[in-house]
Amino acid sequence: MKSKILSLLRERGDYVSGQELCERFGVSRTAVWKAIGQLKKEGFSIEAVQNRGYRLAQMEEVFGQHELESRMGTKWAGHPVAFFEALDSTNIRAKLEAERGAPEGTLVVADMQTAGRGRRGRGWSSPAGVNAYFTLILKPDFEPGKTSMLTLVMALAVAEGITETCGVEACIKWPNDIVIGGKKVCGMLTELSVQQEYIQHVVIGAGVNVGLQEFVPEIADTATCLERECGRKVPRAQLIANIMKAFETYYEKFLETLDFSELKRPYDERLVNCGREVRVMDPKGEYTGISKGINSTGELLVERPDGSETAVYAGEVSVRGIYGYV
Amino acid sequence: MKSKILSLLRERGDYVSGQELCERFGVSRTAVWKAIGQLKKEGFSIEAVQNRGYRLAQMEEVFGQHELESRMGTKWAGHPVAFFEALDSTNIRAKLEAERGAPEGTLVVADMQTAGRGRRGRGWSSPAGVNAYFTLILKPDFEPGKTSMLTLVMALAVAEGITETCGVEACIKWPNDIVIGGKKVCGMLTELSVQQEYIQHVVIGAGVNVGLQEFVPEIADTATCLERECGRKVPRAQLIANIMKAFETYYEKFLETLDFSELKRPYDERLVNCGREVRVMDPKGEYTGISKGINSTGELLVERPDGSETAVYAGEVSVRGIYGYV
Repeated sequence: MKSKILSLLRERGDYVSGQELCERFGVSRTAVWKAIGQLKKEGFSIEAVQNRGYRLAQMEEVFGQHELESRMGTKWAGHPVAFFEALDSTNIRAKLEAERGAPEGTLVVADMQTAGRGRRGRGWSSPAGVNAYFTLILKPDFEPGKTSMLTLVMALAVAEGITETCGVEACIKWPNDIVIGGKKVCGMLTELSVQQEYIQHVVIGAGVNVGLQEFVPEIADTATCLERECGRKVPRAQLIANIMKAFETYYEKFLETLDFSELKRPYDERLVNCGREVRVMDPKGEYTGISKGINSTGELLVERPDGSETAVYAGEVSVRGIYGYV
Repeated sequence: MKSKILSLLRERGDYVSGQELCERFGVSRTAVWKAIGQLKKEGFSIEAVQNRGYRLAQMEEVFGQHELESRMGTKWAGHPVAFFEALDSTNIRAKLEAERGAPEGTLVVADMQTAGRGRRGRGWSSPAGVNAYFTLILKPDFEPGKTSMLTLVMALAVAEGITETCGVEACIKWPNDIVIGGKKVCGMLTELSVQQEYIQHVVIGAGVNVGLQEFVPEIADTATCLERECGRKVPRAQLIANIMKAFETYYEKFLETLDFSELKRPYDERLVNCGREVRVMDPKGEYTGISKGINSTGELLVERPDGSETAVYAGEVSVRGIYGYV
């Protein structure tokens, strides 16, 4: 109920009477009064004026469970939210929740991670108070081999959520890094659990650099954050809610065909180096070609100098533009 | 060291002097005396006679950590052993151990399970003191799609381990049930964890009905146990050690080709209904044909009446002989 009260106060932007709150949520005056008290304790600045009611005075975000719930405008993606001040990693927690029976759509969010991880066992710096770390639980019933495409669906959703929230153009570096102005702003890690031939659960984790921060020297030239790029404060809960909204839409489209035929166009529109020369770092031999966007299974099509087209599978291969880092 | 002392006493079958034990393991008299004391406490009947040394009097098995370790005749499969009196399920524990960094080859064994599971969420009856419940951790670096074949490797190993230990012919009901005289004696459950495109770990769990026991009415006609089939006491630790020995051999063969080309022959030799008429229960439509054994990826080849051959993929399909349960 606290999240719903918060949502209503924010929407209204003005005083809402205690009476209205009671009627709308079918609870007593005391229950409303208690809920308001708890929200204030959590840091929300709510004014109470006799004969007028309650008003959300300060609109700045108080990142947490109720802020996230009250912003979530989806049917199932991001319901329920499981927020933690600190976790080892949102993926580890999400896997645990999934094993314990958490439903599809459950979103694990943390303000900081003590053991944030990137691909291939690399770490992911996860300080408190500035970034968005979240992991979505899915329980699809398609064959396990199709899971690798889900990371691309999330990449598309994160890019769109960032653009929606910050008004800056977020691009995708195939397969699933998000970059702004050529610098990385988000990384993802998808983990899959299969029992016999059936998917038990998939968790898709993302870490988005949001607030102004110093990066360690190793990545200072290649990483950025949303607030630096858009020049203003970015509300993390709203960002996550916008990403969930985009994910829900794209994932449902994906489920219709179980491939990228419907998503290829919006994906390619955000794909860096699309139509330009790229270098494919394949451990079996590097080569250069023109990036032609993804095919219906999410592989990157690269046109070789002899006119032939190679479909590059994510795995061990990385692809970058001929000039610069991306 | 306790497992090694146990191993030596068993091998020798006679007295081994305290002096010899000290020298062989490079420890003090007190350390040997302490280890013997602990083994006795665990239930091993060890005689100590002055001037002669120690002797393992009763050869009957004391199912547990040291019995398992002392029987394990493998290079890596079954090392280390993690034995528990009771677990929710050996698979659940193995996944946890794997996440915490347990090495490939780690074998989780329990005397009983409180939440033993079979395929598709079905339960697996797991009383104490009679059966063998174990899960092997693997960390292969091949592509995730090949994992389904590992269950077939384990099926082959379990069948061979049973025959080796009990002298009865154990057969495989494709893909991975073990049957004796047409009745099921073992079930398996393989679970796979993938991070991005890489396997993090695979756990292969098996439950073998060993000791004489009553089965619930639902499965009384279709289940059996080793002791009923071979008419004598079956040592569980030796059974598990024999299965690990067979698994190690077959798995290493599997790794050479990453398919069943080397294992097809021993597998087909144990395959029930091979060369006979079978009914394929495909949700898309049932049909009848002659089972021709597996192909190199572990699919079952079925020759249809019109002479065409269908490769049956495990998933939702089940196959049984035209007559009887198997």
